[in-house]
Amino acid sequence: MLPPALDKVATLLSRLPGVGKRSALRWAFHILAEPPTYARELQQALGELLLHVHFCKECHHLAEDERCGICRDPARDAHLICVVEGVPDLLALERTGSYRGRYHVLHGALAPLKGIGPAQLRLDNLEARITNHGVTEVIIATSADVEGEATALYLAKRLAPTGISITRIATGIPMGGELEYLDDHTLSRAIAGRIKF
Amino acid sequence: MLPPALDKVATLLSRLPGVGKRSALRWAFHILAEPPTYARELQQALGELLLHVHFCKECHHLAEDERCGICRDPARDAHLICVVEGVPDLLALERTGSYRGRYHVLHGALAPLKGIGPAQLRLDNLEARITNHGVTEVIIATSADVEGEATALYLAKRLAPTGISITRIATGIPMGGELEYLDDHTLSRAIAGRIKF
Repeated sequence: MLPPALDKVATLLSRLPGVGKRSALRWAFHILAEPPTYARELQQALGELLLHVHFCKECHHLAEDERCGICRDPARDAHLICVVEGVPDLLALERTGSYRGRYHVLHGALAPLKGIGPAQLRLDNLEARITNHGVTEVIIATSADVEGEATALYLAKRLAPTGISITRIATGIPMGGELEYLDDHTLSRAIAGRIKF
Repeated sequence: MLPPALDKVATLLSRLPGVGKRSALRWAFHILAEPPTYARELQQALGELLLHVHFCKECHHLAEDERCGICRDPARDAHLICVVEGVPDLLALERTGSYRGRYHVLHGALAPLKGIGPAQLRLDNLEARITNHGVTEVIIATSADVEGEATALYLAKRLAPTGISITRIATGIPMGGELEYLDDHTLSRAIAGRIKF
């Protein structure tokens, strides 16, 4: 009963992660009710996105050139690679300002049930990067959930033959965390991972 | 720190109702990670939406011509107009198959605090429609929330001088509703609105 063009927009929007058909339809109506400049701007922005934004061929971070700003920055330590699941994770680490090495963005984490194995992650060139740039340490900064942990274990095993130092970011109590309210798993990790003053 | 084209897409998506900056950014990443056909299809669908879908000049329902399918349908009773807040409400009523008159879509409800007064609703031509088509009854089918009720009262007052029958869809216990669990307001309305067997 809906015009096909409206239905098409709703169907495409409903393919975004976490978006249901109902919300997508509501947005299609909203786009229609807005001045046409909105839809035109969105059209144009999508075009620019396709045209200008790619993934860095080295680290798979967002890039407007062949290599991203971080890989091109000579001030960043090329001997240190931090492996993250996604670009938002990289951005979170960059906001801390406490990391000066380079990155490797996997664009996912191992999840066999969702059909995501090592081949679905952007891992092909990681060993080559390690060899070519004389990398001395790989920090695995995947999330501390099941998939992130599985990915970390897989990587640690896969990279062991390189002989370089493979580290994992610390798990423990978050700053401001009260012991009373933390889960057992985090607390056990915090005790196991204790460090000397 | 994000490429401007990515940021632009995220900013535009975050203007959709109920969408936060975080979700919008996640979707922009998703669009980038999808094959480019997705973004191209969305671009095209937006173009078609602008080009082909308008609002009916009579009832303000969606239309691919000057007048919508319902207004052009000679089998629909032109003497009966049902006023609804939005197109999804119209579609819900159409799904019931129990209404054979025409509609008038307001595209909103009175909400002074959000700056939505009578001038923001598509009301201009309602009186003209009543006169021109010899309408005998206007059914006000706005929602039973504060804004819908305010809109219904406003319309009832505004249309009173036309002398035609102005009715409001019934409020009461929904089918399958158990009295025990219904709110007081609905129950009072159900008692006040009781009808004879």
